[in-house]
Amino acid sequence: MFEDIHFIKPADIEKRSMAIIEETLIRSSGEEGADRSALLKRFSEEELAVVKRCIHTSADFDYAKNLRFSPGACEKGMEALKKGAHIVTDTTMAASGINKRALAAFGGQVHCFIGDEDVAEEASKRGVTRSAVSMEKAAGLSVPLIFAIGNAPTALIRLYGLIREKKVAPALVIGVPVGFVNVVESKELMMKADRPYIIARGRKGGSNIAAAICNALLYAADKR
Amino acid sequence: MFEDIHFIKPADIEKRSMAIIEETLIRSSGEEGADRSALLKRFSEEELAVVKRCIHTSADFDYAKNLRFSPGACEKGMEALKKGAHIVTDTTMAASGINKRALAAFGGQVHCFIGDEDVAEEASKRGVTRSAVSMEKAAGLSVPLIFAIGNAPTALIRLYGLIREKKVAPALVIGVPVGFVNVVESKELMMKADRPYIIARGRKGGSNIAAAICNALLYAADKR
Repeated sequence: MFEDIHFIKPADIEKRSMAIIEETLIRSSGEEGADRSALLKRFSEEELAVVKRCIHTSADFDYAKNLRFSPGACEKGMEALKKGAHIVTDTTMAASGINKRALAAFGGQVHCFIGDEDVAEEASKRGVTRSAVSMEKAAGLSVPLIFAIGNAPTALIRLYGLIREKKVAPALVIGVPVGFVNVVESKELMMKADRPYIIARGRKGGSNIAAAICNALLYAADKR
Repeated sequence: MFEDIHFIKPADIEKRSMAIIEETLIRSSGEEGADRSALLKRFSEEELAVVKRCIHTSADFDYAKNLRFSPGACEKGMEALKKGAHIVTDTTMAASGINKRALAAFGGQVHCFIGDEDVAEEASKRGVTRSAVSMEKAAGLSVPLIFAIGNAPTALIRLYGLIREKKVAPALVIGVPVGFVNVVESKELMMKADRPYIIARGRKGGSNIAAAICNALLYAADKR
């Protein structure tokens, strides 16, 4: 009854998947006889690792086209992680997807304030989103921070404001909110904030993508 | 500095997003002067709600093409939820994305056994994935169950086996694992299990998609 299923050892599934993704990316480069070096003209090793992990979590090859990296963004993110930077997310789902064991090995932890009572009260009082207020609360943390925003453009917009007001200076902003209202604009805005960024241009993104980018950086940092 | 951002009340963001998704779906039907009825030729109201929420969480319109519903799957899922069915997921991320308040209002709760010590031990002993073993543990629950699989094809394949062995009879299987190794095959297999299903054919899916489908059914059940 399982004649179509190809049995494969658990540990090999991810390796095989990543190989298929890389082959597909090389083939889609369109060059006859292209190999890995064709990809490394477009991406650094770490950028390629981020791109591949986003595709791994979504099976959506658009991420090879829409991801934008500020110069040295991956290196800066990895360096911050290795020094014990904490990660702030806008959703519990993104928080849940981040490999906490890998993060803790460097001394970091994940924060998500979206469910906090005081955040809900403040948001309701001011008529803004809880996502936006959760960024203000995160800005009060007194450790180096990486922000990973996978859902709410209002979080990214408020974070941009906080950066401009010099209330926070993220080591890296992972800006991949998803959706249809102010999403595209929030990302274009963040690219002007003069902080290191990894952003998925356009409407696509998600909590899974935010977590995938964090994990790609964690695994790359661990290999160094 | 926010000249490109269109301010909108928090409560209106989702409504506006859903309207944009629906308009886009109608336009892409290709019929001159098409309206909502064009969509309702392809989907029931509840199926349309599921499709829209998957697009809402991913900005990926492929879900309008790849989702497959067994006859009455949404109704059966909603009915089970209203009777207090529990939801089993293969990842903590999918569990995290499900609206637990909405589920608890009907008497349900979410289970995810992937992180359990006994599951890890058993998986290592047998050389299978923790995802597969976590399905066996879930099959031991003595309440009506909806399975929402967003990550591991090995979970879906083991669940198929458990159904065939008459060890579990899910009220609904949400089969949306994502990826490149046995993912397509695992979904085709589950469509033959003779249980109600909602499946994203092909490689796409994810924990976010699994949670989105659960939430679409929860919100639709709540409206009835």
